[in-house]
Amino acid sequence: MPATNRRITFARSPRGLPTPADFGADEAPIPVPGPGQFLSRTVYLSLDPYYRNVMKNSPIYAERLAPGDVMIGETVAQVLESHHPGFAVGDHVAVRNGWQQFALSTGEGVRRLDPAVAPLSTALGVLGMPGLTGWAGMVHLGEPLPGQTVVVSACTGPVGSTAGQVARKMGARVVGVAGSVEKCDYAVRELGYAACVNYKDGDLAAKLKDACPRGIDVYFDNAGGETLATVLRQLALGARVVLCGMIEAYSMDEPPPGPPLGSVVGARASLKGLVVYDHLHRFAEMNRVVSGWIREGSFRYREDVTEGLACAPEAFCRLMRGGNFGKALVKVAPESL
Amino acid sequence: MPATNRRITFARSPRGLPTPADFGADEAPIPVPGPGQFLSRTVYLSLDPYYRNVMKNSPIYAERLAPGDVMIGETVAQVLESHHPGFAVGDHVAVRNGWQQFALSTGEGVRRLDPAVAPLSTALGVLGMPGLTGWAGMVHLGEPLPGQTVVVSACTGPVGSTAGQVARKMGARVVGVAGSVEKCDYAVRELGYAACVNYKDGDLAAKLKDACPRGIDVYFDNAGGETLATVLRQLALGARVVLCGMIEAYSMDEPPPGPPLGSVVGARASLKGLVVYDHLHRFAEMNRVVSGWIREGSFRYREDVTEGLACAPEAFCRLMRGGNFGKALVKVAPESL
Repeated sequence: MPATNRRITFARSPRGLPTPADFGADEAPIPVPGPGQFLSRTVYLSLDPYYRNVMKNSPIYAERLAPGDVMIGETVAQVLESHHPGFAVGDHVAVRNGWQQFALSTGEGVRRLDPAVAPLSTALGVLGMPGLTGWAGMVHLGEPLPGQTVVVSACTGPVGSTAGQVARKMGARVVGVAGSVEKCDYAVRELGYAACVNYKDGDLAAKLKDACPRGIDVYFDNAGGETLATVLRQLALGARVVLCGMIEAYSMDEPPPGPPLGSVVGARASLKGLVVYDHLHRFAEMNRVVSGWIREGSFRYREDVTEGLACAPEAFCRLMRGGNFGKALVKVAPESL
Repeated sequence: MPATNRRITFARSPRGLPTPADFGADEAPIPVPGPGQFLSRTVYLSLDPYYRNVMKNSPIYAERLAPGDVMIGETVAQVLESHHPGFAVGDHVAVRNGWQQFALSTGEGVRRLDPAVAPLSTALGVLGMPGLTGWAGMVHLGEPLPGQTVVVSACTGPVGSTAGQVARKMGARVVGVAGSVEKCDYAVRELGYAACVNYKDGDLAAKLKDACPRGIDVYFDNAGGETLATVLRQLALGARVVLCGMIEAYSMDEPPPGPPLGSVVGARASLKGLVVYDHLHRFAEMNRVVSGWIREGSFRYREDVTEGLACAPEAFCRLMRGGNFGKALVKVAPESL
């Protein structure tokens, strides 16, 4: 066990896309758990686009970061020392350790993980908050009917791949939107989508029209911007649009204008804002169903793992540029000692 | 009875706001009804903003206009001669005669009007398609709960005043948005709104915030543009936004960008497109309820009547500039001969 706790800190609010210079690094003593606390060792650090918004110190997030603070973030960790009756040494947990090797917890908001249910890292992806986002957004807001056409953007990421595969399980025809040939191939071959359009390849409107000849009944939006505007012009009557992440806007100081809404009226469509925290009561159900699909092999996911905490800033910047392929994770330490 | 039928015709698609030069005028023989037809004399011509979109020859409307065609439009008329078993001489009807003194009808889509139920002109306003738009949009899409805050733009027009007064009847607290002091005074004094904001008076955001301290639960949008963007930043959790007319956009060739949608996500709000034709089956119920309120004096409406068919083009242009106050009508002839 190392003598110190290496940590990645917040240095400043990025301008536009984040750069590694927006982060700092330091070392601190490994903390000692008090009564009712446990100490854990970070195994996986989750990289999620919403961290960019937290770095804005935007009022919509409860968390605030001052320069020098440890970056916030979800992690999978292993309990090293425990004065908490609910957590034993060796237990694996999903806990918000942030971007550091070791952290204390009171157990609040911590989930115990069973490696027999699914690989530990999925607790940060398809069986974590991203998965719940895709599940709740599709099942409860998108509500696709069998045979309807569902479009999902960022369709190979943990949110999009959950939303898309859930829609497929509900009997819908799923068309993905992604940013590379490799992602599109994967979406069709592994995720079971009927088609996938590479938005970087030009003429998104025509390609979507080819893939969705009867119009788009449900759109799960992880993109905003031009992709959203293009989809809105191809909505089927009564369409539902789930507004989830507007990742593009996270790196902007001023919110960009939105898409023209005339076609929303023409289609009698609904646009619905999704915030995953409203759906925490659905977590157990999502976990039970999706982990069953994972074990039977009918639900796929992909991870983009960076080795070593020191590389987390660069990996996060790559994520915000759309350079990842699958759930962005940093492996901080081996799963078990 | 005059010897000829005076008519206002379509001359060309306007550029931006319409001008009288976008219309023509001619005279034609008074048509003679064949078997199953009736001839009627136009009494009131309705002026509605959607005509501007029809003049675009936009694909979202079924109607097409060629230069020289009689302008389309809803009217109240009186039957002069009938070979139709359902309509007798002297009957008053709501019929799409267009911008002309006389027209034939097969009776399709025609409503017989009873002057004892409500004044005839209301068939083009609060008891016509505008009223149904406000009714259906508020009752079935906006769904305000008692005590909730409802904002309505263009709040003294036939759509807005119906939407707002229906919301008041449903127990909501209604805040209007209108374009003059006179309209705002009328909205509070006559329509029973809790408050009304003059958007031409500057700082709409601050004035709305004063009028809606707990946020906006339902917004009935007749405006689009900056008003919509401002309201979206003040939505209460779970808010519903009814997208009805985007009148501003009707006079534009390219759809303008829409409002930023980030606050829609934050509020977990829904934006819903409203097309009145989906709600025709609710017409009889709306008519029964609203005409009862009119007769008992608990529901008000206002009309902006221009005398003479020849003045219809100028009156329509004034409507599109927001210069009307109340339902825009042209009185073409006396109600009864």
